[in-house]
Amino acid sequence: KEQGGDSEDSGSSGSSSTADSGKYETILYREEGKITYITLNRPKKMNSITPEMYQELTDALSNAANNKSYATVITGAGKQFSAGNDLGSVAKYLGMGRPMKEIAEESAVLLEKFVTAFIDHPKLLVGVVQGPCIGIACTTMGLYDVVYASDAAYFHTPFTSLGLTPEGCSSYTFKKIMGPIKANEMLLLGKKLQAAEALQAGFVTEVFPSESFDTEVKRKLEQIPKLLPNSLLESKKFMRSLNQGKLHKVNQLECDKLIGMWQGDECLNAAAKFMSRK
Amino acid sequence: KEQGGDSEDSGSSGSSSTADSGKYETILYREEGKITYITLNRPKKMNSITPEMYQELTDALSNAANNKSYATVITGAGKQFSAGNDLGSVAKYLGMGRPMKEIAEESAVLLEKFVTAFIDHPKLLVGVVQGPCIGIACTTMGLYDVVYASDAAYFHTPFTSLGLTPEGCSSYTFKKIMGPIKANEMLLLGKKLQAAEALQAGFVTEVFPSESFDTEVKRKLEQIPKLLPNSLLESKKFMRSLNQGKLHKVNQLECDKLIGMWQGDECLNAAAKFMSRK
Amino acid sequence: KEQGGDSEDSGSSGSSSTADSGKYETILYREEGKITYITLNRPKKMNSITPEMYQELTDALSNAANNKSYATVITGAGKQFSAGNDLGSVAKYLGMGRPMKEIAEESAVLLEKFVTAFIDHPKLLVGVVQGPCIGIACTTMGLYDVVYASDAAYFHTPFTSLGLTPEGCSSYTFKKIMGPIKANEMLLLGKKLQAAEALQAGFVTEVFPSESFDTEVKRKLEQIPKLLPNSLLESKKFMRSLNQGKLHKVNQLECDKLIGMWQGDECLNAAAKFMSRK
Repeated sequence: KEQGGDSEDSGSSGSSSTADSGKYETILYREEGKITYITLNRPKKMNSITPEMYQELTDALSNAANNKSYATVITGAGKQFSAGNDLGSVAKYLGMGRPMKEIAEESAVLLEKFVTAFIDHPKLLVGVVQGPCIGIACTTMGLYDVVYASDAAYFHTPFTSLGLTPEGCSSYTFKKIMGPIKANEMLLLGKKLQAAEALQAGFVTEVFPSESFDTEVKRKLEQIPKLLPNSLLESKKFMRSLNQGKLHKVNQLECDKLIGMWQGDECLNAAAKFMSRK
Repeated sequence: KEQGGDSEDSGSSGSSSTADSGKYETILYREEGKITYITLNRPKKMNSITPEMYQELTDALSNAANNKSYATVITGAGKQFSAGNDLGSVAKYLGMGRPMKEIAEESAVLLEKFVTAFIDHPKLLVGVVQGPCIGIACTTMGLYDVVYASDAAYFHTPFTSLGLTPEGCSSYTFKKIMGPIKANEMLLLGKKLQAAEALQAGFVTEVFPSESFDTEVKRKLEQIPKLLPNSLLESKKFMRSLNQGKLHKVNQLECDKLIGMWQGDECLNAAAKFMSRK
Repeated sequence: KEQGGDSEDSGSSGSSSTADSGKYETILYREEGKITYITLNRPKKMNSITPEMYQELTDALSNAANNKSYATVITGAGKQFSAGNDLGSVAKYLGMGRPMKEIAEESAVLLEKFVTAFIDHPKLLVGVVQGPCIGIACTTMGLYDVVYASDAAYFHTPFTSLGLTPEGCSSYTFKKIMGPIKANEMLLLGKKLQAAEALQAGFVTEVFPSESFDTEVKRKLEQIPKLLPNSLLESKKFMRSLNQGKLHKVNQLECDKLIGMWQGDECLNAAAKFMSRK
């Protein structure tokens, strides 16, 4: 299924694309060997996630779920993995005179579906985090099976500076991954977790120097097709089944909670301040 | 609400007090800026916790829960954070001829309410552990959101030398925090966890040298009022809600269990041995 | 109950045996002081676990559960702790013309009972891992209370090379012990966890150099009889009660799942390949 044709906008992690790529505006999508590659592809906007990108990623994860690949690899084009939610989109909607309540409810539906696609993804989900990973890109990282990070990466969820509460199941997964004390440091105190700390905390699988990152990751990914696929996918499915119901419940509660937070003064002020800086 | 007036007995972490302080015999209580400071204040008795101190701490946590602060900081006066339960109190009651069964049942009620105050505390709960932290002071540390420890601190729960079973939800929280193997080492084998090991285990947020501890902690606490308070408190509330029911259940089971343990030969012998050493 | 009589086949960790030992073909069993010692004793076969050894270990754990010991120590004779499931036994049964479905269902019953004996074991369960620990020997390690490892030990669960899914409650315990990312690395990617990494991950209590391993472990085990036994056993019982139901459920689900996996092409091919190498 591999096809020629370079995408000039793409980062170092994906150079070839497939016919399917044409479907998407904000991401690259490519199936190669036994792996599906999805690249967040708005490098000039630090791969911040617009409503369109939420939908395209959800759709791409659905495609990857149903193809013949064993694994789905998500990475970012350019120097950032992702700056998280695109605040410009919210401003645009507000500028169009739409009431915040309506935007909030719509966003919650979009977010819940997006996170659901991560919770239920049936393939080995691999994060290739070549640079900073913020907000929703960071919280959903807790739903990946394997994460390779460059030493140029960090992980950041500045919710208490933005007037928000946790999403992406991070209120649940971060405690499970790194224990409550480190989870609180990130989710409540807004601590930036550097790649080396993330390794220590069990948040990422391995960290490689940024100079050799692509080569090292390539070597790692080459191992995946050697695993027995039925065993791999049944093992993942079994392990996920043990907390899948809890994850769906947490996702729903987080999204419900955010409808109120997005309309609160703290969040609106933080967004206004962000916009005025631009 | 800040008030003048020094308390001669207080340790390094709290020098000013409020009108409210007058209410308490065994602790200091002070509201300053957006933070409530509670200091265990029986330094000559290593801040061991008497029935009166259990009640005063429960009451102080209730006050802090309902004031305008964002955060509640608990520390100890003098060189120990706390030596844990005051065994002298038990001896005193026994000396008064009260039956052990009655004392045990009464103590279980007191303990359950005390631990409940930690589980349900709605503010950011910060432990400032300037020295050794033992028994119930250590087990409840698993219910704090943030813990700063001096390198002079250690954490110790010598239950299997005292004829006891875990309390303060530690039978649940310690496994969640540091994994079952390290939790067993503390709770079953009575290992002392040094500050550096506690950091490694995810039991504390940061460790500072004892010489600069006050200054470093002050700097950390100054960051708290910069967080958006609604976001901070709603995030904490949301995260706690995910295991609050479990924590209440564990607390109740632990206290029920202890009623029997306190009346057992192992515990009575250990208490007698302790008393004869004094 | 201690008895004389050396077993020439035993490893460094157990030299004396009791009358009971005579009951067993594949293990050594010895009660000494307050500790019951069980030694996997097929060193020429890397202590791989045959159906007979499954049954003898289950029986020995039952004996140890009901004697006067405080603790049960399991170790391996020779250089390996255990190579895991004995694939030769499966081949033998197949060679006898028994249908794979029948073997699979029978094996699942055997496995579930074996793992149940670990889940419900009421004494302090101590692993003394003097060398490589693989497969079912590794997964059940997540059910021990205390694990001492030699620096010659490693931990390995190559399920996705064998066409299998996790057992021994590892799909649940490994996540609790080392977090999901490290658990996935072992259970999905088949990473070998070296002793030092196992310590870091909270999978083992302490690691000692192989030269001084026996001496260091002896010193550790001598501390156990100093603990107050009722407190120790009641504490273990209480802590286990908090997740015992979940562990039984996971054990049952894992065994049910394996009935299908054992009959799958991936597993049969892997077994055939293994046999042809011998």
